[in-house]
Amino acid sequence: MPLPQPELPEPAHPDVDSMLSRRFGKEVANYFSGSSLNRVSFLRPDHSFLSQALKHPSATFLLFNNLEPLVKAPDQLAYRKFADVQSIIGEDPFHRTEADTIAQYNSSLYQPQIIFLGLDARHGDFEYKGAYKGQPWFAVDVTPKESVKDAAEKLIEGLKGESLDFSKGRMNLNLPAEQAAIYAEARHLLDWNARNPFCASCGYPTLSINAGFKRTCPPKDIAPSVTNAGERPPCATRTGISNLCFPRTDPTVIMAVVSADGQKILLGRQKRWPPYWYSTLAGFLEPAESVEEAVRREVWEESGIHLGRVVIHSTQPWPYPANLMIGAIGQAVPDGETVHLGHDAELEDAKWFTAEEVREALRVGTSGLGEDAGSEYKEGGLRLPPKTAIANQLMTAVVNGFASGSPMI
Amino acid sequence: MPLPQPELPEPAHPDVDSMLSRRFGKEVANYFSGSSLNRVSFLRPDHSFLSQALKHPSATFLLFNNLEPLVKAPDQLAYRKFADVQSIIGEDPFHRTEADTIAQYNSSLYQPQIIFLGLDARHGDFEYKGAYKGQPWFAVDVTPKESVKDAAEKLIEGLKGESLDFSKGRMNLNLPAEQAAIYAEARHLLDWNARNPFCASCGYPTLSINAGFKRTCPPKDIAPSVTNAGERPPCATRTGISNLCFPRTDPTVIMAVVSADGQKILLGRQKRWPPYWYSTLAGFLEPAESVEEAVRREVWEESGIHLGRVVIHSTQPWPYPANLMIGAIGQAVPDGETVHLGHDAELEDAKWFTAEEVREALRVGTSGLGEDAGSEYKEGGLRLPPKTAIANQLMTAVVNGFASGSPMI
Ligand SMILES: [Zn+2]
Ligand SMILES: [Zn+2]
Repeated sequence: MPLPQPELPEPAHPDVDSMLSRRFGKEVANYFSGSSLNRVSFLRPDHSFLSQALKHPSATFLLFNNLEPLVKAPDQLAYRKFADVQSIIGEDPFHRTEADTIAQYNSSLYQPQIIFLGLDARHGDFEYKGAYKGQPWFAVDVTPKESVKDAAEKLIEGLKGESLDFSKGRMNLNLPAEQAAIYAEARHLLDWNARNPFCASCGYPTLSINAGFKRTCPPKDIAPSVTNAGERPPCATRTGISNLCFPRTDPTVIMAVVSADGQKILLGRQKRWPPYWYSTLAGFLEPAESVEEAVRREVWEESGIHLGRVVIHSTQPWPYPANLMIGAIGQAVPDGETVHLGHDAELEDAKWFTAEEVREALRVGTSGLGEDAGSEYKEGGLRLPPKTAIANQLMTAVVNGFASGSPMI
Repeated sequence: MPLPQPELPEPAHPDVDSMLSRRFGKEVANYFSGSSLNRVSFLRPDHSFLSQALKHPSATFLLFNNLEPLVKAPDQLAYRKFADVQSIIGEDPFHRTEADTIAQYNSSLYQPQIIFLGLDARHGDFEYKGAYKGQPWFAVDVTPKESVKDAAEKLIEGLKGESLDFSKGRMNLNLPAEQAAIYAEARHLLDWNARNPFCASCGYPTLSINAGFKRTCPPKDIAPSVTNAGERPPCATRTGISNLCFPRTDPTVIMAVVSADGQKILLGRQKRWPPYWYSTLAGFLEPAESVEEAVRREVWEESGIHLGRVVIHSTQPWPYPANLMIGAIGQAVPDGETVHLGHDAELEDAKWFTAEEVREALRVGTSGLGEDAGSEYKEGGLRLPPKTAIANQLMTAVVNGFASGSPMI
């Protein structure tokens, strides 16, 4: 039986009846976006802010074990308090300035990752400098390893006693949109930190700062095993600002392709998908490509179709592990509509569907990849991804007239 | 005196009068996009293709010294032939399969970086498998260092004899749009390879493959100095596909902000800019943000303005070092128009300008940052970035009615 699909979020700021809305339609806030948190990114280097936020009674913690979130149920994150994680992160992990933290860097000490996610202005009475208010949110990596192995195992035992457990894989996760956005932020940053323990410029270990939003390559390492009085060789990331110090997000293009006459939609399928399942084409943007160019290149490489005009529709964060999905609509040129799968071997099939077929499949044939279609679906009919996928939103936009000149709602 | 501004490129595929064009206006192809090369990305792992392309008489080479391109003049790249770089890259750098190249990995050997840029189908008689045709383009790093120091110095001496030299910094570079797009691809990839010699997952040196579009962490290193019979420890990048192996592109949002009534445009300035110079606000997209959310967050953090609806306008590659500029238009909500610079310290000033002021400045006050405004400019008037900057294109779209419902051309 299909799990209930999460509702799509409203945009973070309620959309007034603006000129942009009247001209371009209402904004589509895709799943994993629409966070209610104010990230106050400029406060992240401020250890005093972080320390106060962390210890405030309203502070809320998401726990992760090997990137799996602690949940009450597949559709509900579990929220914990500072007392729950104190045995892992210590009394006051932000008691030192960042400069001191870097100067005292010791690569032999394990520091469980902490991420400051933001402030929820709707709740809580935490306040900083009279200006920044709201319930502070954090994520903590409680994976049992290194020096926190025993404490983390004990913590996890206790949580199991309360019927809380870590979600096994994303297929089972079906969070309400607002929780999904916060989870996505936490997961993306925990993954980036875990994936990048070494400096790509010099090969030495790096240190998490800015409450999980930056990694720095310290000039000195006071670990007892380090020779040369702890001094490390020069590193290019220490001179000027380097993107290597900041989280990586990979831009990905995903596109609904319409025929030159606007009547058909091109969809493709991968071999590993269930029967009758198709979706929009997608691929990574390459260096020095505009989104519009990447869309045309990917569509040609995967399907042989030649596109003219490309319009960007909406975007979606996708934290597996670090994608930004940029959703576009592209229109084929009249003499470029012949499907050819021989360039790249990525797709098992790509073909044109009528707008009517897609409209019907959006009504009866959508589900998550591992799930059954709804009760109205008839075997053999087209199956499509759920509303939480931007692919679904792009197809919906097309069948609702995005590319045709008729109303977009 | 201002240098001549490059013309903006036409879209790669000539835009037919499509429904998308009629509805959304003609596509804006920003500077650094609009490449005439077909990247045929699926052929990059094919050493036989690369070898034949490299040695074909029509093959064309861009040379770089410490990321500076070889030029004939600030507005003309210099094109060289295989014979010019043979002393640097050898007789046939792609003679082995990729699998063999990885198996024979020797970290003590210096390999000058080669990038395969693509095929230009308009020229040349190179052909592969009867399907992929055109003049092959490559970029080669000829920086005098390591084992190629002498050969590179000799090569550079010879080039100077032909009055060719490497461009000193991007301020002096003013390429025609088509050359700019190819240069951007080469620079982005050379920079990424140079910036990432070590594996961020395990700290060991990595190896360039896929003609410069991938770096891999070999399981073995046959360098004489390496112990343990050359075997290296396990690395997470070797199990499954890791984004660490692929070039990084950082999504950046840049936005023209219009007032709730559509009559004013918000612009900001940084302290280091020349007097009277303003531009649109911009900033990096963060993990798990949609573009629309990043636009709202950045605008609030930098200026205090609250935005409602956000629409994406166009995108621009920006190879300094690895940005994708995502240009958007955002509209302030009626009670969110008060400028406050106190959150983040990034801007010296941000303020509202009338559409008329911006229109006039686009006519008389644009130039590159280090250049003079045009002859019609009067001291004290607003100064803005040139057409090659997406900021200029966004402001142009706004004054031409993008956010108002009137015609967009
Ligand atoms: Zn380093
Ligand atoms: Zn590695």
